Amino acid sequence: MITRINKLAIELPMPKEPDPNGAAAVQELLGGRFGEMSTLNNYMFQSFSFRGKKKLKPFYDLVASITAEEFGHVELVTNTINLMIQGTTFQGDPNIAPMQNAKDLRNSQHYIVTAQTALVADSMGKPWNGDNVFNSGNLILDLLHNFFLECGARTHKMRVYEMTNNPVAREMIGYLLVRGGVHITAYAKALEIATGVDMTKMLPIPNLDNNVFDTTRKYEAMGIHRKLYTWNFEGEYKDISKIWKGVSPIDGQPLEVIEGTPEGGPIPELDELPEEFAPGISREDFEEILKRLQRSAGL
Amino acid sequence: MITRINKLAIELPMPKEPDPNGAAAVQELLGGRFGEMSTLNNYMFQSFSFRGKKKLKPFYDLVASITAEEFGHVELVTNTINLMIQGTTFQGDPNIAPMQNAKDLRNSQHYIVTAQTALVADSMGKPWNGDNVFNSGNLILDLLHNFFLECGARTHKMRVYEMTNNPVAREMIGYLLVRGGVHITAYAKALEIATGVDMTKMLPIPNLDNNVFDTTRKYEAMGIHRKLYTWNFEGEYKDISKIWKGVSPIDGQPLEVIEGTPEGGPIPELDELPEEFAPGISREDFEEILKRLQRSAGL
Amino acid sequence: MITRINKLAIELPMPKEPDPNGAAAVQELLGGRFGEMSTLNNYMFQSFSFRGKKKLKPFYDLVASITAEEFGHVELVTNTINLMIQGTTFQGDPNIAPMQNAKDLRNSQHYIVTAQTALVADSMGKPWNGDNVFNSGNLILDLLHNFFLECGARTHKMRVYEMTNNPVAREMIGYLLVRGGVHITAYAKALEIATGVDMTKMLPIPNLDNNVFDTTRKYEAMGIHRKLYTWNFEGEYKDISKIWKGVSPIDGQPLEVIEGTPEGGPIPELDELPEEFAPGISREDFEEILKRLQRSAGL
Amino acid sequence: MITRINKLAIELPMPKEPDPNGAAAVQELLGGRFGEMSTLNNYMFQSFSFRGKKKLKPFYDLVASITAEEFGHVELVTNTINLMIQGTTFQGDPNIAPMQNAKDLRNSQHYIVTAQTALVADSMGKPWNGDNVFNSGNLILDLLHNFFLECGARTHKMRVYEMTNNPVAREMIGYLLVRGGVHITAYAKALEIATGVDMTKMLPIPNLDNNVFDTTRKYEAMGIHRKLYTWNFEGEYKDISKIWKGVSPIDGQPLEVIEGTPEGGPIPELDELPEEFAPGISREDFEEILKRLQRSAGL
Amino acid sequence: MITRINKLAIELPMPKEPDPNGAAAVQELLGGRFGEMSTLNNYMFQSFSFRGKKKLKPFYDLVASITAEEFGHVELVTNTINLMIQGTTFQGDPNIAPMQNAKDLRNSQHYIVTAQTALVADSMGKPWNGDNVFNSGNLILDLLHNFFLECGARTHKMRVYEMTNNPVAREMIGYLLVRGGVHITAYAKALEIATGVDMTKMLPIPNLDNNVFDTTRKYEAMGIHRKLYTWNFEGEYKDISKIWKGVSPIDGQPLEVIEGTPEGGPIPELDELPEEFAPGISREDFEEILKRLQRSAGL
Amino acid sequence: MITRINKLAIELPMPKEPDPNGAAAVQELLGGRFGEMSTLNNYMFQSFSFRGKKKLKPFYDLVASITAEEFGHVELVTNTINLMIQGTTFQGDPNIAPMQNAKDLRNSQHYIVTAQTALVADSMGKPWNGDNVFNSGNLILDLLHNFFLECGARTHKMRVYEMTNNPVAREMIGYLLVRGGVHITAYAKALEIATGVDMTKMLPIPNLDNNVFDTTRKYEAMGIHRKLYTWNFEGEYKDISKIWKGVSPIDGQPLEVIEGTPEGGPIPELDELPEEFAPGISREDFEEILKRLQRSAGL
Repeated sequence: MITRINKLAIELPMPKEPDPNGAAAVQELLGGRFGEMSTLNNYMFQSFSFRGKKKLKPFYDLVASITAEEFGHVELVTNTINLMIQGTTFQGDPNIAPMQNAKDLRNSQHYIVTAQTALVADSMGKPWNGDNVFNSGNLILDLLHNFFLECGARTHKMRVYEMTNNPVAREMIGYLLVRGGVHITAYAKALEIATGVDMTKMLPIPNLDNNVFDTTRKYEAMGIHRKLYTWNFEGEYKDISKIWKGVSPIDGQPLEVIEGTPEGGPIPELDELPEEFAPGISREDFEEILKRLQRSAGL
Repeated sequence: MITRINKLAIELPMPKEPDPNGAAAVQELLGGRFGEMSTLNNYMFQSFSFRGKKKLKPFYDLVASITAEEFGHVELVTNTINLMIQGTTFQGDPNIAPMQNAKDLRNSQHYIVTAQTALVADSMGKPWNGDNVFNSGNLILDLLHNFFLECGARTHKMRVYEMTNNPVAREMIGYLLVRGGVHITAYAKALEIATGVDMTKMLPIPNLDNNVFDTTRKYEAMGIHRKLYTWNFEGEYKDISKIWKGVSPIDGQPLEVIEGTPEGGPIPELDELPEEFAPGISREDFEEILKRLQRSAGL
Repeated sequence: MITRINKLAIELPMPKEPDPNGAAAVQELLGGRFGEMSTLNNYMFQSFSFRGKKKLKPFYDLVASITAEEFGHVELVTNTINLMIQGTTFQGDPNIAPMQNAKDLRNSQHYIVTAQTALVADSMGKPWNGDNVFNSGNLILDLLHNFFLECGARTHKMRVYEMTNNPVAREMIGYLLVRGGVHITAYAKALEIATGVDMTKMLPIPNLDNNVFDTTRKYEAMGIHRKLYTWNFEGEYKDISKIWKGVSPIDGQPLEVIEGTPEGGPIPELDELPEEFAPGISREDFEEILKRLQRSAGL
Repeated sequence: MITRINKLAIELPMPKEPDPNGAAAVQELLGGRFGEMSTLNNYMFQSFSFRGKKKLKPFYDLVASITAEEFGHVELVTNTINLMIQGTTFQGDPNIAPMQNAKDLRNSQHYIVTAQTALVADSMGKPWNGDNVFNSGNLILDLLHNFFLECGARTHKMRVYEMTNNPVAREMIGYLLVRGGVHITAYAKALEIATGVDMTKMLPIPNLDNNVFDTTRKYEAMGIHRKLYTWNFEGEYKDISKIWKGVSPIDGQPLEVIEGTPEGGPIPELDELPEEFAPGISREDFEEILKRLQRSAGL
Repeated sequence: MITRINKLAIELPMPKEPDPNGAAAVQELLGGRFGEMSTLNNYMFQSFSFRGKKKLKPFYDLVASITAEEFGHVELVTNTINLMIQGTTFQGDPNIAPMQNAKDLRNSQHYIVTAQTALVADSMGKPWNGDNVFNSGNLILDLLHNFFLECGARTHKMRVYEMTNNPVAREMIGYLLVRGGVHITAYAKALEIATGVDMTKMLPIPNLDNNVFDTTRKYEAMGIHRKLYTWNFEGEYKDISKIWKGVSPIDGQPLEVIEGTPEGGPIPELDELPEEFAPGISREDFEEILKRLQRSAGL
Repeated sequence: MITRINKLAIELPMPKEPDPNGAAAVQELLGGRFGEMSTLNNYMFQSFSFRGKKKLKPFYDLVASITAEEFGHVELVTNTINLMIQGTTFQGDPNIAPMQNAKDLRNSQHYIVTAQTALVADSMGKPWNGDNVFNSGNLILDLLHNFFLECGARTHKMRVYEMTNNPVAREMIGYLLVRGGVHITAYAKALEIATGVDMTKMLPIPNLDNNVFDTTRKYEAMGIHRKLYTWNFEGEYKDISKIWKGVSPIDGQPLEVIEGTPEGGPIPELDELPEEFAPGISREDFEEILKRLQRSAGL
């Protein structure tokens, strides 16, 4: 089970202008084979079906706790896409075609299927699907997969970063490069413990330091590249400390396990979009709703 | 963001004999169009991209908090499938074909692709995909969808219940019929507040009371059909109480909003399956792992 | 079985200029999850497999007869797309690249896979598929689905309307908003008869009257928002009159059941497109064909 | 547009015992790449988007009119599947697992997703999709495709015939082999007129006469292998007579064009299936429905 | 089995400027239903599973040997796409968005998923899949399919030719129109031998001679439209000469069977793309690699 | 380009009895995400689009040459499936249902869609698709992927081995475990050269020696676990010797690079299957074909 926290992993900047085709590209980081839906669901199902949870507790704790972080990453990328689309269309009489700007954009379903928010699909509009989950049950093979998955995800993030200078996308990618780097290192360490092979020696993949990216430096300065969270406040998943120890490969400073979650930032408020009929509650409707909400419990 | 709780929604019974084709059927409740992956992801993305979170807070709180419960339902159905498969094969020299029983079963990927655990797919092996998420951004249309989705999910659960008398499957379905019933009623009430139309009058769909099912009565006796949880311990999502009020359509007792989560039960331990090489850690490997885990932090 | 009528539901205007990206967007209304292929096939299969056709004849008649109308809607949207593409390319020697304009457009398969005509796919090029058909066999659940499906389809039509001011697209959408509105009301009435719940009170979804759209007013003035057709000339499907009765929620005028079909308009003639080799019959070929057609029956 | 006729292409026999795995195989003839959904939609979209309808009228009339026949074939195969499943499960308290027989069958979605009726999918459960439609716009290529498609469909029908001796399946296949044979010959003749090449010389494909199949002989004795219907009563599509002329390759008797449709048989009534909650209307519900139906028009 | 030859079918020109949307269109010729992946895999699987290889040796030899040629066509189209993309982006600090030009292009996965090279997908980004393989085992039906497939492939090539005047695309298409023409004729001849029907009389489909295309004339002048290769140097597959004989329908010159393969041209070298991290080996890395390569065999 | 060799990688035993459900399981090894279609196409496209072929020649040579071997593996698994199905049905009048045994089997398309031969699909009937190809262009990431892919493929082979004792399946798997082991080691060595990390230390994955499997020992005794082939007779791809050197991790004997290919075994002849109409050439047809084949070149 989970509890839900009404915060976003970080505070996102408000965009000054729309970047709808940038948003279409960022979809790859959400619903592509190496997107956050893949990391979330891979670790979620691996942890649900882990064989030997007690005997191999540090490994179980690792996969189980990172699952929780990935939920927040799906949320973060989704919010980024939502903000990037913002401002593409205008409000007005349907007969003046207030969404005319959308016709030539790369992702028409952002305008027809959702109300200018993220789809569960990749940058070409193909839906994410369950075949993206790898869960062999063999510990080493699953760890190897996760290490590979995170490196692939890092590659895609770095490439999307280079495709747009949109500040929302870059803030998100800057942060996720740091957190993804933590996960890559964590799986590398887990593999070393499981097999004796020092995978950290092949890092980073691709061979470019995180600090090259303008928006990662702030997060590294905060030390969050050294922190692995348990995502639990009741003392669970703490055996990740048996894996997450030693010093950071980036700055040689000690790695830390944090019980709980990062502090997070505010979840962006999304305004009404009358041209999308979203949420589609007129002033009169709203007054009626208020009345009904105020009625006694006699429903 | 979320925190993760290391508990299952309820305690599942341990099965006495394998029911692999039953497990294949239960996959529909996990990865089918009306499976728990669909409820989880529909509410997750609807809540991420909700327009007017503040103005329409009771509705946002409803969708956001139920998302959290659905994570636990995906976890519960996954564990059910895992337990139902258990015992299908035997341990032995690969050359005696210890998985020969699996060849004629309905879901061969339970044996080849995973180590006898759930797939992110439906009862015919088709992967769940992102097109199963409906997120129009129009409040009433989304609520109507959710009401319909829950009724469809209830129908599928009732049908799978009739296909197997496996005690694990039935315990899970018994519980989820109760919780699904809560969600149906909650969306019905939300629709009534939003539109004035009393949807509860058309319930239950299908027209058969939950208490007909042997394994639901226990949960109704515990009153859990009257409880909606906030899935948060910091005071968030409490405006669901503006929707979840009045009395239960089942027993006329008062509905309650519970801050936090249900207590839950233990997560089943899954034993090693040598014939699946899962987790595939030999005694010698394990001793090496222990040594590496005990090493100082000098990785 | 069916008979085929060589007419289109309405007469479409001839476009003055091409709107290929508009056509790409309109594909959502044909082959998207809420497109006309979905309404056609949902009702077609529900009616084929209806349990209790005699006992529940008014409901069967409703679903069966609307199926027939939806065939005409698929035909109408297809013709709309065909006309919108018209004029994108020019005729000429292949070596001057007479289809060069197509390279940067949103749907390249309009030019490569078909000869500038509609695909059985959505606005992102994803093929329509059979999972879009919902057919539970439970009367109330199927009616609820159909009500929801039509509301979703209405939403998508309204959004596409706002993306292009192309006169062909708008004429088609204007008409289909009226006919879709009839179907929404019909399913709402069927649900009320089946359950007692007055679904019409939540209409319209989205909350914007049809008459806001310039191209719907003509059709409302003709009263076609009050007419439900049997799509049969032999007295079948007439029990829809047990559901389709009372007055229109739009103008309070009496609802009518019309035996048979609307009058319809001419099917657009599509000219040869030499640059597409469509139909690809040269003058010489054609003369040979004429000769062969005129030959005696001795084939 | 179309009108709908409330008859099935032929009268199907009532089965004496269930043949659910036979029904699973017959799905290939409905929703497979060479199933009736493919013939229906190929000709439907080819006729909608035909270039040069007037100049090449005999060819347009051919494709347009056969479309109508294919609707009836989809209906016929669907009804066959429905009848073949009948009797698989029994009625009873959900707790005795009245659908237990379904667990080991090949198509679990016949029991979970529909109420023991056909799916829009092939024999492995994969949904039919729009990529199965070929519509190049080049007349000769499209005719060649249709000729090939019909030969492929014939092959699949002959193979499914050999997999089950179920009388419903065989009646349907016997009839469709005859009608498919008509379509193969018609497209062969169209190709000959268009190109001068006598395709009929390569028939039958596969090389086995229809009269080998027990259930085809009756239909050949009725002469229906010589008849091509216009599927229209207003004089449309009659130019098929310019193609469908001469004598039958089977018996040398004259080919005929019939204005209108075959007479057809009764549509099977499908009983209630309480264990599927289909249609799920209790006696009390039904009485309420009757009352509501009888109410005055004041809805 | 195969041997691999380190040559491309022909020498491709180096492009002067990027044509990324042209490359997106050319994807249809690689991974579309009628792309080279389809011809390769159709013939590959048909030849693997051919029934009666000895008795029907000329036909087996035909399908088996053309398989080998199709491998080279997949390679050729892939290289064409790679060259067409070249130059779209520039090298530079990630923070200046060196791939900004890619954001508005039609195929974003060319930049995110690969390093500006071809995808196994069609022009809309949909992955090629195994349903594109037709392999009925019936000789005549399979030959008919192959004849149809090649004609469809020819149509698509001619249409893409008209969409771009890119010299690389045109060189490739010019060559493949010639080779495809050879395959069409070969399957036509095989069908004539198998059935007595002269399919060559309906050629070309579409009805436009190859020599209309500027880039085909060179290859016809070289006579390669008269050559069918065995793609083997050990005397295998030579019975294609029983089918490939007589004179060319294009110039009346004698057809020839060539033992072995065409001479081929150089495989294009693809430069490093630092902005894609491809191959991502820094100068320092490379020196380390050289050292490791030079180490003794004592790995 | 390639040449084709008319031999199978090894000689397969002839089966004594059919194992159709075993064949259905083996499909995973052909068309599953980790099947041979995946290894073939991953290396094929990686080699086609390799950046820096000259500078990084040993790595290019490795991927390019293994591609060729994988073609033979696809061929081998396909032939295995074909042989395993053999004998499932019997010859006879279609009216006695000579394929009745097929109705209850796991893969009905083996009987309907092909003539009892392999499909391009996995063990659940899902078609292989192009998303299974990973080709990032980053050398280290691609090598890491290939190492992971081969380990996953090994796992699936070991599991299928345990599901059937069919001698054809086991011979094939026995051989491919050895060859797959070679590829795993080769990619491990390539990764070590590229990164300095000794991946061989984590082998084997899963942790079970190949020699446990009865049918691998013969091949290890032949030393084929030490051989890497260039799959070329013209001196190409020989730089694999810079990677494939040292001693075998299995027996400490020296690794060898073999120029060319293994010797191979005979390709199984597949008999006619009249009940499948495959190849469907009657005695009379065959005599006609012979006459046409013998005709002079005057076609």
